[in-house]
Amino acid sequence: MVSTINISSKKMFTEFHRILLSRGFTEENALRCAQIFTNNSIDGIYSHGVNRFATFIKMVDDGYVKPNNTPSLKSKHAGIEQWDGNLGAGPLNAMFATDIAITLSQQYGIGCVALSNTNHWMRGGAYGWHAAKKGFVFIGWTNTIANMPAWGAVDNRLGNNPLVLAVPFNNEAIVLDMAMSQYSFGSMELAKMKDEKLLVNGGYDTSGQLTNNPSEIIASKRALPIGYWKGAGLSLLLDILATILSGGSSTQEISKNKIEAGLSQVFIAIDISRLGNNSSISNLIDNIITDYHQSVTGDEKNKILFPGERVLQTRKNNLANGIPVIKNIWEEILQL
Amino acid sequence: MVSTINISSKKMFTEFHRILLSRGFTEENALRCAQIFTNNSIDGIYSHGVNRFATFIKMVDDGYVKPNNTPSLKSKHAGIEQWDGNLGAGPLNAMFATDIAITLSQQYGIGCVALSNTNHWMRGGAYGWHAAKKGFVFIGWTNTIANMPAWGAVDNRLGNNPLVLAVPFNNEAIVLDMAMSQYSFGSMELAKMKDEKLLVNGGYDTSGQLTNNPSEIIASKRALPIGYWKGAGLSLLLDILATILSGGSSTQEISKNKIEAGLSQVFIAIDISRLGNNSSISNLIDNIITDYHQSVTGDEKNKILFPGERVLQTRKNNLANGIPVIKNIWEEILQL
Repeated sequence: MVSTINISSKKMFTEFHRILLSRGFTEENALRCAQIFTNNSIDGIYSHGVNRFATFIKMVDDGYVKPNNTPSLKSKHAGIEQWDGNLGAGPLNAMFATDIAITLSQQYGIGCVALSNTNHWMRGGAYGWHAAKKGFVFIGWTNTIANMPAWGAVDNRLGNNPLVLAVPFNNEAIVLDMAMSQYSFGSMELAKMKDEKLLVNGGYDTSGQLTNNPSEIIASKRALPIGYWKGAGLSLLLDILATILSGGSSTQEISKNKIEAGLSQVFIAIDISRLGNNSSISNLIDNIITDYHQSVTGDEKNKILFPGERVLQTRKNNLANGIPVIKNIWEEILQL
Repeated sequence: MVSTINISSKKMFTEFHRILLSRGFTEENALRCAQIFTNNSIDGIYSHGVNRFATFIKMVDDGYVKPNNTPSLKSKHAGIEQWDGNLGAGPLNAMFATDIAITLSQQYGIGCVALSNTNHWMRGGAYGWHAAKKGFVFIGWTNTIANMPAWGAVDNRLGNNPLVLAVPFNNEAIVLDMAMSQYSFGSMELAKMKDEKLLVNGGYDTSGQLTNNPSEIIASKRALPIGYWKGAGLSLLLDILATILSGGSSTQEISKNKIEAGLSQVFIAIDISRLGNNSSISNLIDNIITDYHQSVTGDEKNKILFPGERVLQTRKNNLANGIPVIKNIWEEILQL
């Protein structure tokens, strides 16, 4: 039984801000970074919000994340730019790159920023929400350390390389944020802690059989790609693209260091206000979602949700009642 | 037991060309279209080559595919353009859109063409190979008629919306061409015909249980999205993006007509020769693939292949020995 406490978003933000300042972040960077970690938690993405904050601070303390390094331009050609993240804080670099991609898209219709030498962006969906709330289409992805085998292999040479697609919708957004593994190791650790089985098979046990027992997958370190060979293939292509477009490190190179640092990421924005059908776009999306919501389920209570839809309710609840945090995790943060 | 015969690529091309001319295609359009169908077959993608040719001709005969209609520009803003496919032949429209995206990328670094009102592009990988062999990165996708349920639903409101990613490699290419369903209905029909089970579960039986029996999935019409909720979510976002970027029909609108026509597609090209690290790109890819090939398998004979790698061997075999075609299918084509 895992014991949780509710922490107000204001309290959480204040603690994060205090800790970031204590690690040498400038006031502005501390505010921005605390806000991203708090927002991820408000939205219910605890694994890349409050649950990951102490790990992030350790990366700062160990010198892998440079608090006040900012990206520098490496090369540009009209709508595409390459930036070096200079090992700055991943969430700050990613938000910076998203904003540059948006600016490029305003000029060129579509803009692409490829970012090398950056760090874990935490919740990729944060950048999708950011761009889509401003009215832009967003497509982005990151590579990661090797944490998934190729299809048919037993050793991990692929990252789970999360992919984010986002579109504006009803002053909010539809945001898909998906890693190429069926489950993240973070969510498997959580299921293990709660003594729960996974809903579907999430990887292999140490004898090579597919299993939904998170403990066995954590022991074998063999997570399952979504769609078996398909997710493995998509992961490989996302790594190749992030690496060549940014001129940065591949999953293989990142993995040599055993520490997940110096990642490669891609941020694409599209300015849909420049399209000839701009005025009808919200209707087009509305029609698709209305139909999607009419999906027939075997069970009346089981409403079909679009990616990101649950977030709105979670956000409302967490803002009203505080963010549920595992007690040990919060106590650890207070000690930082 | 399915009986096959080997048809030389020249013979296949000649027959396709003859039939297309008989349906009113201009000489140039007949040559191009015959070449795409033949190339797809040479590469071993029979389901979207020779096996689909008669269906394509029926779409022409029934008036859904207009042999000589070509795309017309609807709107443009620097690197992004919207084109109306005017219900022309899907493969010809898609190749046209790919070439425009390439041209845009040469000027703007990244170029995007969104195509409405087009038809089935057959093998999406064809456009990835085309762009990558010319030295460009390619990202493209199409929507389809509804053929897959949302996660948790029993009725089909999502398309399987194939996604293509391609990069140049060793004068050839790495090309991922994947639908969002674990298996296409085409491949399940083939497995059924050969009385084979699927390697992994590919959908539901009529009682709602997951199964690898293709006959039962064909009967229930419920295919499984890759990665369960993840592939369903990605399919939804790809449909939304194709629809809004092109100002075209969504999966829902296409499905109203029961005939898969008037599709929406997206073609993105990136001119990697404009990037600052242009000279090192082939090395970066080489390093990734060399590592990937070193994946450890339980079985010495089981070599790990990258997406598109098997195509090169199949292409060589089929050019040397002829293309294996199911006898009935070839006889049907000869009657067209």
